[in-house]
Amino acid sequence: MGGDRAPDMVIQGAEVALERDPQLDFILVGDEARIQPLLAKTRRLKLKNPTIVHTDKSVGASDKPSIALRAGRGSSMRLAIDLVGDKKADCLVSAGNTGALMAMSKFVLRMVPGIDRPAIAGIFPTLRGESAMLDLGANIDCDATNLVQFAIMGQIFARTVLGVERPVVGLLNVGSEEQKGHEAIREAATLLRDIVDMPFTFHGFVEGDDIPSGTVDVIVTDGFTGNVALKTAEGTSRLISQSLRDAFRSSLLSRIGYLLARPAVGQMRQRMDPRRYNGAVFLGLNGIAVKSHGGTDALGFANAIGVAADMSRHGFLETVTRELAAAGLNKTNDERKVVATA
Amino acid sequence: MGGDRAPDMVIQGAEVALERDPQLDFILVGDEARIQPLLAKTRRLKLKNPTIVHTDKSVGASDKPSIALRAGRGSSMRLAIDLVGDKKADCLVSAGNTGALMAMSKFVLRMVPGIDRPAIAGIFPTLRGESAMLDLGANIDCDATNLVQFAIMGQIFARTVLGVERPVVGLLNVGSEEQKGHEAIREAATLLRDIVDMPFTFHGFVEGDDIPSGTVDVIVTDGFTGNVALKTAEGTSRLISQSLRDAFRSSLLSRIGYLLARPAVGQMRQRMDPRRYNGAVFLGLNGIAVKSHGGTDALGFANAIGVAADMSRHGFLETVTRELAAAGLNKTNDERKVVATA
Repeated sequence: MGGDRAPDMVIQGAEVALERDPQLDFILVGDEARIQPLLAKTRRLKLKNPTIVHTDKSVGASDKPSIALRAGRGSSMRLAIDLVGDKKADCLVSAGNTGALMAMSKFVLRMVPGIDRPAIAGIFPTLRGESAMLDLGANIDCDATNLVQFAIMGQIFARTVLGVERPVVGLLNVGSEEQKGHEAIREAATLLRDIVDMPFTFHGFVEGDDIPSGTVDVIVTDGFTGNVALKTAEGTSRLISQSLRDAFRSSLLSRIGYLLARPAVGQMRQRMDPRRYNGAVFLGLNGIAVKSHGGTDALGFANAIGVAADMSRHGFLETVTRELAAAGLNKTNDERKVVATA
Repeated sequence: MGGDRAPDMVIQGAEVALERDPQLDFILVGDEARIQPLLAKTRRLKLKNPTIVHTDKSVGASDKPSIALRAGRGSSMRLAIDLVGDKKADCLVSAGNTGALMAMSKFVLRMVPGIDRPAIAGIFPTLRGESAMLDLGANIDCDATNLVQFAIMGQIFARTVLGVERPVVGLLNVGSEEQKGHEAIREAATLLRDIVDMPFTFHGFVEGDDIPSGTVDVIVTDGFTGNVALKTAEGTSRLISQSLRDAFRSSLLSRIGYLLARPAVGQMRQRMDPRRYNGAVFLGLNGIAVKSHGGTDALGFANAIGVAADMSRHGFLETVTRELAAAGLNKTNDERKVVATA
């Protein structure tokens, strides 16, 4: 169990998730001596009598992925991933070190055949509801094939987790005209336009302001751009909240005004609450792994658990495998090379 | 004169700018028959008796840059650029087609020796005040040398327009650790760390949320990432304003609360007003050209005029030339090649 407030936040998060979804079962991986007393204080979770896999070894928040990969055997993170790899768990949720979680998950779970690289996907609020974006930082550089694979996984994610019937997918660019942007994006657009009979609609290019306006259900981009866009949106949101707080505090009248408007403003805050959108999902791995924000609380962690449970319950992995095959894209990179050489 | 509401908005913008800064002089380029009656209605501008350069030719909003370059001779945009090229004007402000303005400005004004490519810079509000970012979309791909040149121009822009004494410069990346990001960014960081005796401080890498928090005075990035970040911030700002408006309208109490808090909220809106940050500046050209948003009003256009006047008055171009020479970076690309081959 990792994260700034683990194991307390993790146990409490599981309790909240169970309150929302009583069918969940948990395996708790970490220091049993610390977990037991926290578990005893829960209402629902202790009644489920969850298995505790004990270890006092953990991956440090600043450990490099390569170090974690070599020295992380027996750590709580690694044992949790092994449980998914051994099909003893359907999915895993961790609030630990992102790089280490990605490296170890990739090593243990391997990739879905046909997907070359994993991507990190996230959900965010828009004017129209919610959308998903990927990649949020796993791959600095992406070629056209990577982007097409992200698009296919992203639309399945939108169907299984956001419940969108026929997701609309857009490629993030600096303009909507066909000749705009990097070669990889333009090529990906051509490939996506050629895919037919798939349960999603390719919208074409979208721009940065289309992310919060919800023009499409799924935004596809490379990990560099996606990471910058996500953090810019988070930062802008904080800047406006802070300025609004200052404005409300600036006079007696505005303080009274705030008191009257508080329930309404609170509703809006709740809709924008980052905890609601907690849970960065690793897509492309042959197993379901969700990374919770390290600094979140029980409510945020419960949301990450909800995302993992939704993916598992709605057969995310099976759907990816099936739709890649249907699109003729279920070849590994090596198999594609053989075909290209033959 | 271009833009959605030209020439009215342009003439009124000049009037507002003159009200703020009575020392300004204007040359108005466009259709004299439309300009004259609008000019007659102004108070200050008509007293300045501005020269009108007549043309009824203009560049269309959707004209491709290459077309504008070939067929744009005699257009209001081209004539205005020529005035700067011929040193008859100190700077130009246009609300017309961005791509055409960039292509024609580059062709007529040429580059400052030592700068390989022009960059588009903009100003935006932060938690700490205001910062500048470049490139916002002129160059999709940038190498380390481009980024270093942008950093040098960006800090001079922050000194001349934002009045920052010793600007702090950051490179936009997906993490602050040295090994993060593209090779071009890492190499640019090394080059910037090696530059000494310059009137700015290199902070290192910054992330997307550092843009609105104002961690640094100048954010340097390639035009693809900069464009996505800018538009994501604008869109997020609109999403929150819209949600806030909905919240205030949701009940009678919140409507009353809004009435009481309105002056305070208005103050905050004013601080965030996109018109305050209107004016995308083309840096690296051997002349001062500022692009106003096409959809802005007189207030926004006046701000763009203010930015151009500040740059001209504080000797932006001379400072760029001097500081490039001081850093030994005043070679053109061809000269550098000769040195490298010799």
